[in-house]
Amino acid sequence: MTISEPRLDRDDLTTIGQELHRFAAELYPICRSITGNGLRETLKKIQEIVPLEIREVPSGTKVFDWEVPKEWNIRDAYVKNQSGRKVIDFQEHSLHILNYSVPMQARLSLSELRTHLHSIPQHPDWIPYRTSYYKPDWGFCLRHRELQALEEGEYEVCIDTSLEDGNLSYGEIALRGESSDEVLISLHACHPSLANDNLSGVTVAAFLARLLREKKLRYSYRFVFIPGTIGAITWLATNQENTKRVRHGLVLTCIGDAGGFHYKKSRRGDAEIDRAMAHVLKHCGEPFEVLEFSPYGYDERQYCSPGFNLPVGCLMRSVWGTFPEYHTSADNLEFIRAEKLAHSLRVCTQAIEVLEGNRSYQNQNPYCEPQLGKRGLYGSRGGQAIPEEIHARLWVLNLSDGSHSLLEIAERAGLPFSAIREAANVLLESGLLTEVVAVS
Amino acid sequence: MTISEPRLDRDDLTTIGQELHRFAAELYPICRSITGNGLRETLKKIQEIVPLEIREVPSGTKVFDWEVPKEWNIRDAYVKNQSGRKVIDFQEHSLHILNYSVPMQARLSLSELRTHLHSIPQHPDWIPYRTSYYKPDWGFCLRHRELQALEEGEYEVCIDTSLEDGNLSYGEIALRGESSDEVLISLHACHPSLANDNLSGVTVAAFLARLLREKKLRYSYRFVFIPGTIGAITWLATNQENTKRVRHGLVLTCIGDAGGFHYKKSRRGDAEIDRAMAHVLKHCGEPFEVLEFSPYGYDERQYCSPGFNLPVGCLMRSVWGTFPEYHTSADNLEFIRAEKLAHSLRVCTQAIEVLEGNRSYQNQNPYCEPQLGKRGLYGSRGGQAIPEEIHARLWVLNLSDGSHSLLEIAERAGLPFSAIREAANVLLESGLLTEVVAVS
Amino acid sequence: MTISEPRLDRDDLTTIGQELHRFAAELYPICRSITGNGLRETLKKIQEIVPLEIREVPSGTKVFDWEVPKEWNIRDAYVKNQSGRKVIDFQEHSLHILNYSVPMQARLSLSELRTHLHSIPQHPDWIPYRTSYYKPDWGFCLRHRELQALEEGEYEVCIDTSLEDGNLSYGEIALRGESSDEVLISLHACHPSLANDNLSGVTVAAFLARLLREKKLRYSYRFVFIPGTIGAITWLATNQENTKRVRHGLVLTCIGDAGGFHYKKSRRGDAEIDRAMAHVLKHCGEPFEVLEFSPYGYDERQYCSPGFNLPVGCLMRSVWGTFPEYHTSADNLEFIRAEKLAHSLRVCTQAIEVLEGNRSYQNQNPYCEPQLGKRGLYGSRGGQAIPEEIHARLWVLNLSDGSHSLLEIAERAGLPFSAIREAANVLLESGLLTEVVAVS
Repeated sequence: MTISEPRLDRDDLTTIGQELHRFAAELYPICRSITGNGLRETLKKIQEIVPLEIREVPSGTKVFDWEVPKEWNIRDAYVKNQSGRKVIDFQEHSLHILNYSVPMQARLSLSELRTHLHSIPQHPDWIPYRTSYYKPDWGFCLRHRELQALEEGEYEVCIDTSLEDGNLSYGEIALRGESSDEVLISLHACHPSLANDNLSGVTVAAFLARLLREKKLRYSYRFVFIPGTIGAITWLATNQENTKRVRHGLVLTCIGDAGGFHYKKSRRGDAEIDRAMAHVLKHCGEPFEVLEFSPYGYDERQYCSPGFNLPVGCLMRSVWGTFPEYHTSADNLEFIRAEKLAHSLRVCTQAIEVLEGNRSYQNQNPYCEPQLGKRGLYGSRGGQAIPEEIHARLWVLNLSDGSHSLLEIAERAGLPFSAIREAANVLLESGLLTEVVAVS
Repeated sequence: MTISEPRLDRDDLTTIGQELHRFAAELYPICRSITGNGLRETLKKIQEIVPLEIREVPSGTKVFDWEVPKEWNIRDAYVKNQSGRKVIDFQEHSLHILNYSVPMQARLSLSELRTHLHSIPQHPDWIPYRTSYYKPDWGFCLRHRELQALEEGEYEVCIDTSLEDGNLSYGEIALRGESSDEVLISLHACHPSLANDNLSGVTVAAFLARLLREKKLRYSYRFVFIPGTIGAITWLATNQENTKRVRHGLVLTCIGDAGGFHYKKSRRGDAEIDRAMAHVLKHCGEPFEVLEFSPYGYDERQYCSPGFNLPVGCLMRSVWGTFPEYHTSADNLEFIRAEKLAHSLRVCTQAIEVLEGNRSYQNQNPYCEPQLGKRGLYGSRGGQAIPEEIHARLWVLNLSDGSHSLLEIAERAGLPFSAIREAANVLLESGLLTEVVAVS
Repeated sequence: MTISEPRLDRDDLTTIGQELHRFAAELYPICRSITGNGLRETLKKIQEIVPLEIREVPSGTKVFDWEVPKEWNIRDAYVKNQSGRKVIDFQEHSLHILNYSVPMQARLSLSELRTHLHSIPQHPDWIPYRTSYYKPDWGFCLRHRELQALEEGEYEVCIDTSLEDGNLSYGEIALRGESSDEVLISLHACHPSLANDNLSGVTVAAFLARLLREKKLRYSYRFVFIPGTIGAITWLATNQENTKRVRHGLVLTCIGDAGGFHYKKSRRGDAEIDRAMAHVLKHCGEPFEVLEFSPYGYDERQYCSPGFNLPVGCLMRSVWGTFPEYHTSADNLEFIRAEKLAHSLRVCTQAIEVLEGNRSYQNQNPYCEPQLGKRGLYGSRGGQAIPEEIHARLWVLNLSDGSHSLLEIAERAGLPFSAIREAANVLLESGLLTEVVAVS
């Protein structure tokens, strides 16, 4: 039997961190939305990393209680003052436009214009991110100090957008493993120039897929790069057969900033991914917190809706909505850090190593301990403290009664999964264990 | 479907607090006991608030391992000194007599008299409360400084009591709701001039019954105003059919003082009343503690005896036996406070709102979230934090899979039950939920 | 019905402590090993306390994955320097020889000799304890300052040992109780001059067996005095029928030093012995800690191997391997204390009292409380706090529904088992309880 052991953490983390950040920087300027060419262009960029398939779902498609909206595209948008100077210019920053703004050509007084302007008084140098996907509206977002500098007078508003029948685009890559059971990795790729939310998730997932493509895998893996909410709903509605194969899943979001890790458990609360992630974070060397499930957040909301109740958790660093830069222009390329992206990638690979390697075994010598010494698996000199690798072997032997997985053994032993996995490998080679094949 | 929603907390708490205290003050001077006219008079007073039925159970009636005792009545009792001055006078305070004292006419020396006198050296200005229900005895209770002031000489003792075949009286009011399942509210009404223990429970229960009489109720309610221990045993022995209908129950005692709340769980420990009460106290804004069940206390001892094991908990403020004023004349009308009685009443009504409103629902759109926005149930402007009422809706939708009650949802969401109940009402109106009818 | 109630703690603890320490002192100088005459002599000494049966298992006997080794005996061992002076002398201390050293006669240079010498640089005045049971080797252990004092030159090494076919010896005493279900008490008796590890366990067990022989017992008891690891494996392999009768078990080790108690739970984690021991320690008046099971330690490793999974825990004071004196000559007769040995013995007897007395009862008056007063089991004067013995009776009555053992009642009541046992006895005498006979 081959022990699948995808060593995914051997890359130079510094190098890969730089690559991750560089790729995020390429995606950063694009004005994405839940539909349209910005999203499509983003998916095409990802194809440079992994052979993503791009799917198009037509506007008007019924997806459960929702409907795929009209496709939104933007060419330009600005506000000019009386002197003809652009006081707000979409070309300067994609956040300036209220996302999904309807087309508009108008001349307005300042007071009329103001009802369509959004700013953050507490952070006068940041542009907020605002959307109006389902209520036809238009507007601009700008720095509060820019708003305050606007003088009385007539303004010219130009919003050169289109909102027409088209498609919702998403990207998907499936990696085939030994089993048709799947691990789902999902992330929203719909936000415009916001780095942590969620170019961090997009880049880490793309590189994770690239790493896994080179491995012999136990599980099959499916990565979906989708617009938030409507994209997850569309994917679930149009891939219901696939959902039945999801054994484990992760939503990745806000994983590039300097904050400690937060893992939000699946609705089930005790799914294998929940235990694997908690285990990996406990040993990851960074501060972390494991959060209970709640029905608001990102697309785990949909995966964990009661009809699906999939074992999908959400990995974050700083929690969305809790950091001041969230949904503002301050969530920029400086806010995410190369080494944090790299370490997030490593945490993902370690969680996958746990899932890949988490099997159950039967001790073939269950009556008393087998004599490890005669197999060279024990120190020969008695009377001294035994080292951790022997502890790991004793734990595996003691709990390999068919009802404990290696992850459970690692948790009970207080040892990292890799040490327990390594002990199991050694004991398997010695013929002291046999694998227990679960009947599913 | 009508959602029963008894808004019981809309009364002006200040006004109702004054009413509660005034009623306690009317009952205070009466010399109650476990039988007799003082108890009967008390029940008749309560009839001025609610149409209580008064039951009489004859002396000698076998009630499980016990027997209803002879009826005790007292007309007068005093001790006169040699000068003929009353040095202890029952007319001054009902606690002066050892409750259930046998009749006595005697002339005694001070040293003989002393063996029948009870005082509290640590609190020389307080009269203790002492009883001798089951062992024929007589005695007086007095302030320790009065005891010390007694001079040598002969004393005349007069105890004009009777202990004869008669009845044990108790009061009962049943309010009929949609279901024949009952909520039992029980309190001991047998203590003489002691305010917190238990005129506080008596008055709050009487006013609670009055409030509930005006409501359309899901459950039926039964209030029993009984003498402690023997009264509860008598009620259980003579109402065994009723006990089978008890779905939830509360004993109310010592709920008028300034202390924080204490809720003692039922023997079951996880009964719905236990969870409801813990929930209400968590959100009540006063300090509180939830205590494990123990087999000593007030009448929950009987309701939670192993043969019945009813889901009956006990609500208190300060715990009986732990405050120095307990069972002394210092447990007087100053010791209980109008606003504390009123807030205790409100906590009771809130617990009843939980019981009344705690149902389970089935999300009719269990696959992904339903689109709340198109129903006007979500903010239309994306990108900003969602308010608590939307959180409540998402929680109800996510957990309404038929296996979570609204109380469980409220607990998991960390939101007050009323917010969850309100969310469920809104979702029901939108057709997004249907009620799950439990098969009992 | 007779309630078996072995009052084992009435002995004068000071006297018994001195006896225990005196017996440990007699055993201390003997050079024990996992086989041989030192072990045999030790078992014969124990026969002076209790009629131990000594078993001999021939070398070469297959015991699961192991084999009984050749028997090792030592007559003398020394190292002489060029002047003919013994610089290391086994006669001075049994730890000087690497235990299980093969015979050796040689003349060596200092540097050659050094490769066979063991010392502890951090503790230059202590001799380490080292063994080489399964790899043929020879060596000496000595104080580091002695090692450093060795001068260049030729040394004469003499190790007069034999390693030949013989037997592994162990001692066993079985005490017959009402039931054939057994309590197993196991301790390793193979260490040479080390007092806490494990003459403490040996002496306490011998005296415990002596105490129990005088009692009428519910369970049968089996004490095994065995060499560590190979002895436990040998006992298990050659007594497999007996293992099926083991209902509770304890390994005793390192229970004579001044440290607080440590109880390591059985692999099951919630065995009755685990709960009994935790209960006894909670009330023992010394610091204590309850440790989770782990598969390294002493012979509980074998009893708790997955094939047996016996309910055997391990009682210690300081945990082996964690105190600096462990496995050195500093674990001597001063390191163990008479009063600590005595208190350890008392803790063992208290745990046995729990096991012996832990039964379940049925309250014969389950509807409401029975009237304790008329049976003289309650205070007759109402209105005052009830004492602990009445609390204990109420707890027993309330929870004696056939599904709670007395130990569970004691835990829930927060009272010592003895108080609950006493309450049950009183209630049994009053006819208020009947025993629930478990169907096994």
